[in-house]
Amino acid sequence: MTTVTTDDKAVFERRESAARSYCRSFPVVFEKASGATLKGADGKEYIDFLAGCSSLNYGHNDPDMKTALVDYITNDGVTHGLDMHTSAKAAFLEAFERIVLKPRNMDYRMMFMGPTGANAVEAALKLARKVTGRTNVISFTNGFHGVTLGALAATGNGYHRGGAGVPLTGVTRMPFEGSMGKDVDTADFLNRMLSEPSSGIEPPAAIILETVQGEGGLNAASRNWVRRVAEIARAHGAMFIVDDIQAGCGRTGSFFSFEEMGVEPDMITMAKSLSGFGLPLATLLIKPEHDIFGPAEHNGTFRGNNHAFVTARVALEKYWADSDFQTEIRKRADLMTKRLGEIASMLPDARLKGRGMMQGIDVGSGELASEICARCFAAGLIIETSGAHDEVVKILCPINIEIGTFTRGLDILEEAVGEIARSTKIAAE
Amino acid sequence: MTTVTTDDKAVFERRESAARSYCRSFPVVFEKASGATLKGADGKEYIDFLAGCSSLNYGHNDPDMKTALVDYITNDGVTHGLDMHTSAKAAFLEAFERIVLKPRNMDYRMMFMGPTGANAVEAALKLARKVTGRTNVISFTNGFHGVTLGALAATGNGYHRGGAGVPLTGVTRMPFEGSMGKDVDTADFLNRMLSEPSSGIEPPAAIILETVQGEGGLNAASRNWVRRVAEIARAHGAMFIVDDIQAGCGRTGSFFSFEEMGVEPDMITMAKSLSGFGLPLATLLIKPEHDIFGPAEHNGTFRGNNHAFVTARVALEKYWADSDFQTEIRKRADLMTKRLGEIASMLPDARLKGRGMMQGIDVGSGELASEICARCFAAGLIIETSGAHDEVVKILCPINIEIGTFTRGLDILEEAVGEIARSTKIAAE
Amino acid sequence: MTTVTTDDKAVFERRESAARSYCRSFPVVFEKASGATLKGADGKEYIDFLAGCSSLNYGHNDPDMKTALVDYITNDGVTHGLDMHTSAKAAFLEAFERIVLKPRNMDYRMMFMGPTGANAVEAALKLARKVTGRTNVISFTNGFHGVTLGALAATGNGYHRGGAGVPLTGVTRMPFEGSMGKDVDTADFLNRMLSEPSSGIEPPAAIILETVQGEGGLNAASRNWVRRVAEIARAHGAMFIVDDIQAGCGRTGSFFSFEEMGVEPDMITMAKSLSGFGLPLATLLIKPEHDIFGPAEHNGTFRGNNHAFVTARVALEKYWADSDFQTEIRKRADLMTKRLGEIASMLPDARLKGRGMMQGIDVGSGELASEICARCFAAGLIIETSGAHDEVVKILCPINIEIGTFTRGLDILEEAVGEIARSTKIAAE
Amino acid sequence: MTTVTTDDKAVFERRESAARSYCRSFPVVFEKASGATLKGADGKEYIDFLAGCSSLNYGHNDPDMKTALVDYITNDGVTHGLDMHTSAKAAFLEAFERIVLKPRNMDYRMMFMGPTGANAVEAALKLARKVTGRTNVISFTNGFHGVTLGALAATGNGYHRGGAGVPLTGVTRMPFEGSMGKDVDTADFLNRMLSEPSSGIEPPAAIILETVQGEGGLNAASRNWVRRVAEIARAHGAMFIVDDIQAGCGRTGSFFSFEEMGVEPDMITMAKSLSGFGLPLATLLIKPEHDIFGPAEHNGTFRGNNHAFVTARVALEKYWADSDFQTEIRKRADLMTKRLGEIASMLPDARLKGRGMMQGIDVGSGELASEICARCFAAGLIIETSGAHDEVVKILCPINIEIGTFTRGLDILEEAVGEIARSTKIAAE
Repeated sequence: MTTVTTDDKAVFERRESAARSYCRSFPVVFEKASGATLKGADGKEYIDFLAGCSSLNYGHNDPDMKTALVDYITNDGVTHGLDMHTSAKAAFLEAFERIVLKPRNMDYRMMFMGPTGANAVEAALKLARKVTGRTNVISFTNGFHGVTLGALAATGNGYHRGGAGVPLTGVTRMPFEGSMGKDVDTADFLNRMLSEPSSGIEPPAAIILETVQGEGGLNAASRNWVRRVAEIARAHGAMFIVDDIQAGCGRTGSFFSFEEMGVEPDMITMAKSLSGFGLPLATLLIKPEHDIFGPAEHNGTFRGNNHAFVTARVALEKYWADSDFQTEIRKRADLMTKRLGEIASMLPDARLKGRGMMQGIDVGSGELASEICARCFAAGLIIETSGAHDEVVKILCPINIEIGTFTRGLDILEEAVGEIARSTKIAAE
Repeated sequence: MTTVTTDDKAVFERRESAARSYCRSFPVVFEKASGATLKGADGKEYIDFLAGCSSLNYGHNDPDMKTALVDYITNDGVTHGLDMHTSAKAAFLEAFERIVLKPRNMDYRMMFMGPTGANAVEAALKLARKVTGRTNVISFTNGFHGVTLGALAATGNGYHRGGAGVPLTGVTRMPFEGSMGKDVDTADFLNRMLSEPSSGIEPPAAIILETVQGEGGLNAASRNWVRRVAEIARAHGAMFIVDDIQAGCGRTGSFFSFEEMGVEPDMITMAKSLSGFGLPLATLLIKPEHDIFGPAEHNGTFRGNNHAFVTARVALEKYWADSDFQTEIRKRADLMTKRLGEIASMLPDARLKGRGMMQGIDVGSGELASEICARCFAAGLIIETSGAHDEVVKILCPINIEIGTFTRGLDILEEAVGEIARSTKIAAE
Repeated sequence: MTTVTTDDKAVFERRESAARSYCRSFPVVFEKASGATLKGADGKEYIDFLAGCSSLNYGHNDPDMKTALVDYITNDGVTHGLDMHTSAKAAFLEAFERIVLKPRNMDYRMMFMGPTGANAVEAALKLARKVTGRTNVISFTNGFHGVTLGALAATGNGYHRGGAGVPLTGVTRMPFEGSMGKDVDTADFLNRMLSEPSSGIEPPAAIILETVQGEGGLNAASRNWVRRVAEIARAHGAMFIVDDIQAGCGRTGSFFSFEEMGVEPDMITMAKSLSGFGLPLATLLIKPEHDIFGPAEHNGTFRGNNHAFVTARVALEKYWADSDFQTEIRKRADLMTKRLGEIASMLPDARLKGRGMMQGIDVGSGELASEICARCFAAGLIIETSGAHDEVVKILCPINIEIGTFTRGLDILEEAVGEIARSTKIAAE
Repeated sequence: MTTVTTDDKAVFERRESAARSYCRSFPVVFEKASGATLKGADGKEYIDFLAGCSSLNYGHNDPDMKTALVDYITNDGVTHGLDMHTSAKAAFLEAFERIVLKPRNMDYRMMFMGPTGANAVEAALKLARKVTGRTNVISFTNGFHGVTLGALAATGNGYHRGGAGVPLTGVTRMPFEGSMGKDVDTADFLNRMLSEPSSGIEPPAAIILETVQGEGGLNAASRNWVRRVAEIARAHGAMFIVDDIQAGCGRTGSFFSFEEMGVEPDMITMAKSLSGFGLPLATLLIKPEHDIFGPAEHNGTFRGNNHAFVTARVALEKYWADSDFQTEIRKRADLMTKRLGEIASMLPDARLKGRGMMQGIDVGSGELASEICARCFAAGLIIETSGAHDEVVKILCPINIEIGTFTRGLDILEEAVGEIARSTKIAAE
């Protein structure tokens, strides 16, 4: 037995499904990774401004998590235990309670389902329907909640919805803040639609939203809007669910994306960076009074990934035991805002979007955004687009990214935009 | 930072959702595991006849997989890479092609979606609908395919279906072999229902089945029945999908559960033991002509778990490179049949079910099966029930279980059944 | 203003939708009708063995109903009154109570919805779901209950279902008696599917059936089978609904088709011959304890057709006040059985189907059945096919048809079949 | 046999379903009717400002229609002919073509389904889905299209939707003009939602609307808004369907409600006053290029009601052969506007709604509107409410109402409102 190291891409063509995607933008076989850097099998290094779409908030292969995980494996820690009690899970639960919940005065139960964000959303919607006895769910334009059938119904993206093969039911779409232009107060709209007995909108079991729509184009909801939606949910007897899969775990500056909004969601979905190490892990935080699933009523084989519990615990203890990390994030976020502002100013009509460490530039078209990303990649920077038209160049680098690396990445982006701006200008002249 | 080791169960009560289940039958905090043995935080050892519901076919913490994984981690191998190419994935694909596909003359593409079996089923059903332009799917009574909304529609279990909170649509249920009594030829029934233009059954996009229904009570379909269903699928223009999540990876004696049945499924779902090590990994095998998802049309964050690719490759190379392992499995399966036959004979009306290394005893009632399992656990054996009434005591131990351990486990089971048989007999006298 | 009398068919081509159908088999402009005879604008007469698909059980333009209706109109009786009380409705209700319900010891409320059978089915299914709080409905292969979306879901015919344009949900199909061959006891099958907790069949709100499937091919259920299905419905908490739209109003020999079966449906749908005169009228009979719709919860503009109430009352008083009429029907039904038996014997493999005054011959193929009907029409007899393959030549003549006319019609049929039998025989020689 | 005339209401209590409704507001047994007057069995007369909810636009028992109908019946005209050609249908089609279609330069086919408006809507939605291959339909808040399952999904009213017993699918609700306050341009909103690829709104098969929402509260859409919606439908490949069931047949002043709006619907649903006499009749007008249902693909027993064809033809010839009638309607509509304006001014915050001969007063609350109607009834006027909160007192009297009767009815309404205004004022002082 040997560890095969290969940069042969032919096997992917032969054997991997056409559904593969990111590898098309970044046609390299990656072999190693550390912090904010990925290394190809050919030895070339890339700065990672994608970070597993926010699954690697602490970067690749954090040394402390790595040590803890290797220790755990070496000592024959339980790897797979269905949803049996393990010491790794106990330690994670204790850390989450101590470091996350108690200081924030939050009281939640944690449900571990299959370790994907979509599965957490599926569980949340099922539970909301069970709690309320209602079937309708409100989700928002440009929201992205996953592609399994229950979650996909709540997802706005037409391309993904088109893959369903069946009509998607049980969800009513409402306009996200700002999506219908300045004149439409979308929270008021939502409230009217729910209040009007002949609107044809069934009383909802839940209202689910992302405070910052990652896939939808880095649309950041205001504190005021999120609060109003939470109040509308309460007033209409609906569960208020924050999908914090992409925006949570520090991405916006605080552990949860909504911490400074003064809302108390009935449920919170988490995944992506929860394990800290990029390992599959998802959870649904549930207010105790709504924790009414029967045993295994929503079950699965990989409920609770013990390796992920180990690294997730380390992530909490290392980064969230005090407020230092949040200060560090803020510093990087401010730098990001500043640099992106400068870069955006190079393009006519470009505008900044997002908040915290999930910011980007709406460059006005998917073609342009795509060209910028391609130039960045050629220069050693991995960066992607988002938005309904892929029109936003988004930065989702590790939130603990080393400042020098961060700056180098931003320089590459600036250079790429600059080249395009210059060539466009020349072309226009 | 310290590695917390705890046997404190209170944190689970406080913080883990009521949806937790197996921990209720086995109220121990497990800490270590090796081969077919789990060790509690209190030092007590348990023989594992559950094996993560067939997710640990090669036992806990296989030393070769462990070494390869620790090496990979230590060397900063890529942990999370979305669906980008990695050397770990390439090596796995090559091994799967070389060891699994080519020797069996099989030509499939592999799709990696979120690493759960349910997600593989969701992808399969979506793809079948896309390929055929139809919406209806045929699944079978007692089938279990997962609990996310698309998969749950195909699952028969009423308890799980009840958790949906919405009517489950898009699936027509047909009787599994033997489920309607001896007089009903269920393949003929299926064919009539699909052939009759006024039956009210829409032409199906897919027929999905497990060759052995694990959760449904170890109902093993005959070669003839599976072939006929495959032919019916073909005749009616439907994708024939084998859900090999629980019965695959050697559980029935061969790598795929249907190898000796002479069928060529259009799609095959795999998960559970695919990684070999209990790590989350799932795949959908797709005949190349049906591989028509667009890039990321069915996507997800944890598509392709590199740690799992590393151990999965070792599992293939170690166990499946030649036929020795299959001989070993058969030996154990024969022993299981023999011992279970003897044990079943101690109970009136008990009967053997299943095949290969997924066999069990239908003891006639859930209460009795539950009591047997409880007595086994008290004696150090982890074993569970299945079936619509939880009436089957099932054995899903590692398929490479060391014979001594296997025998000790079977002895415990025999002793438990014997006690109950004697006490029942005494009570009856 | 003049009464236009025309035999110009061009206007139908120009202005009537392609959805028109019977006019294609009988391309004549009809102008007058009386008893069992239709007269074309060209003066040609046709014997009517179709009778509005059982909507004209008492023939065309019954003189007593005609007189009452003309009187009513002449005296400015209320034509349209929404669902306000009218004297015509009161008189009909009183007659129905006195002549139909009381002598049969039946206690039902009557709901008048839009005057179509499909609408009665829609109301029945909605009400059953409301009463039980369940969504699933059991209907049977080859059942026909209408083509509006709720009713269409319960209809088996693939051609009609194909017109839905959306997946039809909320209904589970079970095999009708005899439909799966002699070995399958379909009542037992139904019971098993409902009793098995992992069958994947939701507990039903209702089981709906026709005792004789008219459109489905004159499949007559046995007394025993209907009773068992009624018991299964009761045992599983489902409403038992008899759709008596085509088989009711005397068609099978008694007013209701199930009178001698010893069942008490929770609901009964009626339409077609209810008005007696061919006027649109439908009703849903509801056991008082299930009469829980709120006012106008199921509403409509043409609830209660006063003209139809007038003729419907006359029909009851004229035909059902004593048992003479039933004797007359039986006499005709016996004659029909005898003659059809003789006719069927002329064709190899032909077999009789149906009961009472809804009998026919399954001639084995739609082509043959269609040719027989075409020859009959050429000879002055209007007769149609039914069944999943249109393979049944069915007789639905007025149940009070004058014996001479009846015999002439049967003679035409015999002659048509005879010619074909002879030509086939000659061809075969 | 005797014609029973009764004013005994007990039989309704005993035998008519609790779903009955209008009879609760007007607890009288009506016996005769003529023009705009209904007469109770007790001899008392009532002015009819409800007119069968716009089903009696030409009043009760129009003498010319009556004569033609009695002639038809007396001469044994075909009453029921399924969808076979009859001379009555031919004459109607010719008249409709000559009087309605040709002068308006309209080219449509007419489909006759079950004679209810809901059935016309069901057919329209099915056909739109078949034509486009899409499933989603756009309907509007406060829209009312019927209560069978397909039509009910398009209906906004929560009370009626609650009766479905199943989730209603396949329809997306959009805000009607003005429903979301002055700041929201609802046509622009609709366009954005359909244009945005991540809005989560599937491309629609159809957009269906009423130009004046009758049940929804007499909400009259502007010419400009209807045109824009029609353009949006075209731009997005959706059928544009006008549901003219309540607003058509002259109710708004022209035969179709949209005649002066410059739109060409792909389909138009008609029912209510189509027969002219209150007899059940419905039709779907279909642009020839969309007339693609197969024969009987959408069928029914009472397709085409010959009695109704007779009266419907007379209605066209009598009222629509020239423009005189439209002048008469306009005169009455102007009078209605004037008088209602005066009446509304007696109540604080009351406002006029609707247009043509479907106008009313929004009095601000259902209680108040209900009290007004009750007082009117006590004074001999039948009048009803509409709107989501039943807050609109609506006038739907015959559009050919004799001016004296009209004035007397308006006087009663004015007196009723005046009394309430005075008593409220006194109470307030």
